Amino acid sequence: MKSKRIRGYSAERDLVKKLWKLGFAAIRGPASGAKVKHSVYPDVVAIRSGLVLVFEVKYRRRLETIYIPHHQVAKILEFARRAGGIPLIAVRIGELKEWRVIPVDKLELVNNMFKISREVLENSPKLHDYISNMLTRKLTSYKQS
Amino acid sequence: MKSKRIRGYSAERDLVKKLWKLGFAAIRGPASGAKVKHSVYPDVVAIRSGLVLVFEVKYRRRLETIYIPHHQVAKILEFARRAGGIPLIAVRIGELKEWRVIPVDKLELVNNMFKISREVLENSPKLHDYISNMLTRKLTSYKQS
Repeated sequence: MKSKRIRGYSAERDLVKKLWKLGFAAIRGPASGAKVKHSVYPDVVAIRSGLVLVFEVKYRRRLETIYIPHHQVAKILEFARRAGGIPLIAVRIGELKEWRVIPVDKLELVNNMFKISREVLENSPKLHDYISNMLTRKLTSYKQS
Repeated sequence: MKSKRIRGYSAERDLVKKLWKLGFAAIRGPASGAKVKHSVYPDVVAIRSGLVLVFEVKYRRRLETIYIPHHQVAKILEFARRAGGIPLIAVRIGELKEWRVIPVDKLELVNNMFKISREVLENSPKLHDYISNMLTRKLTSYKQS
């Protein structure tokens, strides 16, 4: 079985590859999970013509409740604030070979950790659907202005 | 004397720190110069409210002519195209403790390499001046529209 860190890396690489195919410029941060734990680097940043997505990346074997430490959420919030971007949690579900995208306003504060319940995770959009939706919205807001 | 790779890393870290102080969200790519030589990761990406700067980073002890391989320029061009950003070469001059910023249209094709002559490097704006200028221009274009 692969170590947690290696699974994390390969999830990040997979996310970058998928975002690239969807037309984004995407970049992984340096050595996330390793020495630079408390830096403000997000795991992945993706940009397409002004739309900036800022990701904290998680890997789980199956659909289950996830707890996320404060500082991991804080760093994507601050990065997104400066960039004018959207802070997101992307969860790779190994068993389903699926990515789910969770906006930070779905996070619940429980026992001093941010919680994504199994239900929220299950009802969150898949990567492709989330991106299509965002790009459509962006296009619509262009037309209106 | 530090190795070329270590000087490269510390130059990238310095650039990220400076951009962060200038209000940008900035991120280094993973392990540039190492295994992922031919990926499309730029060395550094910086974003501030819709302004996206895509950097290839160089370190030189002194002001001198620099040659850059094709693929390094190609990767920042493609990343910037997708992101709707500006592809730039940032050169750290060790002796002067200065950053110079060179837009890709100043690159000269010589013997199948991209060349930044000593003169072009010397006449290129310092990081702080380049950024101030870009932010002013952006503000002006907002006012006009």
